[in-house]
Amino acid sequence: MGNPTAAMLVIGDEILSGRTRDANMHFLAGELVKHGIRLSEVRIVPDIPERIVEALNALRAAYDTVFTSGGIGPTHDDITADAVAAAFGVGIDVREDARALMQEYCDRMGRELNESRLRMARIPEGAALIENPISAAPGFTIGNVHVMAGVPSIFQAMVAGVLPTLVGGDALLSQNLTVERAEGDIAGELRGLAAEFPDLSIGSYPFVRDGVYGTNIVIRGSDGARLDAAMGRLCATFPEAVA
Amino acid sequence: MGNPTAAMLVIGDEILSGRTRDANMHFLAGELVKHGIRLSEVRIVPDIPERIVEALNALRAAYDTVFTSGGIGPTHDDITADAVAAAFGVGIDVREDARALMQEYCDRMGRELNESRLRMARIPEGAALIENPISAAPGFTIGNVHVMAGVPSIFQAMVAGVLPTLVGGDALLSQNLTVERAEGDIAGELRGLAAEFPDLSIGSYPFVRDGVYGTNIVIRGSDGARLDAAMGRLCATFPEAVA
Repeated sequence: MGNPTAAMLVIGDEILSGRTRDANMHFLAGELVKHGIRLSEVRIVPDIPERIVEALNALRAAYDTVFTSGGIGPTHDDITADAVAAAFGVGIDVREDARALMQEYCDRMGRELNESRLRMARIPEGAALIENPISAAPGFTIGNVHVMAGVPSIFQAMVAGVLPTLVGGDALLSQNLTVERAEGDIAGELRGLAAEFPDLSIGSYPFVRDGVYGTNIVIRGSDGARLDAAMGRLCATFPEAVA
Repeated sequence: MGNPTAAMLVIGDEILSGRTRDANMHFLAGELVKHGIRLSEVRIVPDIPERIVEALNALRAAYDTVFTSGGIGPTHDDITADAVAAAFGVGIDVREDARALMQEYCDRMGRELNESRLRMARIPEGAALIENPISAAPGFTIGNVHVMAGVPSIFQAMVAGVLPTLVGGDALLSQNLTVERAEGDIAGELRGLAAEFPDLSIGSYPFVRDGVYGTNIVIRGSDGARLDAAMGRLCATFPEAVA
C-alpha cells in the first residue's frame, strides 16, 4: 500500500445545509485513483475560519497532499484564502500576478475590477498560483495544500492543472464481478478470499434489481497479476457470475 | 445559533475510491435542516478500524449527535459495529432481540441465518436497536451516536426512525433570490447586508445560464421576521431580481 495519500477538505455551508449536493469529491476521487493516489479522508466543514484552520492543519500533517474546494470567490463569506494563510502562519495580500490575471479577464468581459473582485487576487505568502482557465480568479498551492474553487467546472479545470505536478503511484486497479446471490449467502466465500489475498481490498455491495438480490464484488489493488489470480478464484467459486 | 449540532461519519472505501457517489449525506443534511438540527461537520474515512474509532471519538465529543453510515453488513469488510464498540470501550456480541429479527426475516425470505448474517446481530453493550423495515438487520444507538446502514433506502428508513427521538431546534429557515448579475458586481451590497444582519447567514452562489451570469442569494436563519426584513432590503437593492 505504498501509494501516496491525499485528503480533501470541502468548505461549504451550502453542502452542510443540504442546499447543494457536492460533486467535487466524487470527481476528485476518480481522478486520484487514475493517478495512483489514495484518497484517504474527506472532511466537510462550514464557512467558519477556526474550523477550516483546524481541519486543514490536521489533514496536511496526516497526508501527502490536501485538496480544498470552495470559499475563494468575491463575497464576504469567501474566507478560505485567509484561513489557509492563518493555518500556515503567513501573511496574505493582493499579489501583482494574480491581479494582472483578474484585470485581463475583467477587461475582456467588460467588467470592473472592483474591491470585491480584487479579493480574489489575495494570495498567501509563498504560494504558487493554480490557473483558472474559466474565470481567471486563480487557486493556489502552498506547502502540500492545493486550494481550489467550489464551482464544479472550475474545480475540475484546476484539478487537471494540478495533477500532472504531483508524484503519482502505481495505478490503483480494480476488477468487478456481479453475482446474483444475496450478500449474506456469499460472505463466507468472500471472507476466505480476503484471507488468501491480504494484499488486495475486496469489497461487496449488495443490490436488488427487478426483485433479484445480487452482490457486486470489487477487488482493488496495484498488482495486476494478483488481481487476475483473485478474480480467477472468484470466477471458479461463482461460475454463474458476470464479470 | 442555539440549534442542536450534528456530525456525520461516512465509512466507505467505495466512496473514497470514486466507485460510488455518496447520497446519504445530502439526504441527511436536508432532513436535519427540517428538524432544526445543524449539520456541522462530515467526515469520510476508509474501512480501517483505527480511523473509524479516532474520527468517531472526535465527532461525538464535539457535537450533540453523530450519525454514521456504512459498514454494518455481513461481510469481512463490515467492521463498523466493532469499531463503535471499541470507541466506547464496551463489548460486542450477538444479541437475542437482534437475532430474532434476523431469524424472522430469513424464515420469511427462505434464507439461512448463517454465520455471516449472524454478524449483523452483533450489537455493542448498552445500545438500543434502530429498526430496519427493509432487510431486518438493525442499526443501533449508543450514547449520542446513531449507527446506520450505507444502502440509501435503508439509511433513509433508519433516519426516519431516529429523527423523532431527537430534540430538534427552531426550524432553520431559508429564502432565495436570483439576481442576473455576476457575483463580483453585487458582492459589495451583500457584504453590507451581512454586516447589517449578523444573526443571519447570507450565501451567494454564482451561475452561468444561456450565457447570462447570475447569482443565487440564500439567506438562512431561524427568525422568520429577520429573514423577511433582510429579504425586503435585498429586493429593494435588486428590484430586477426573482424571488
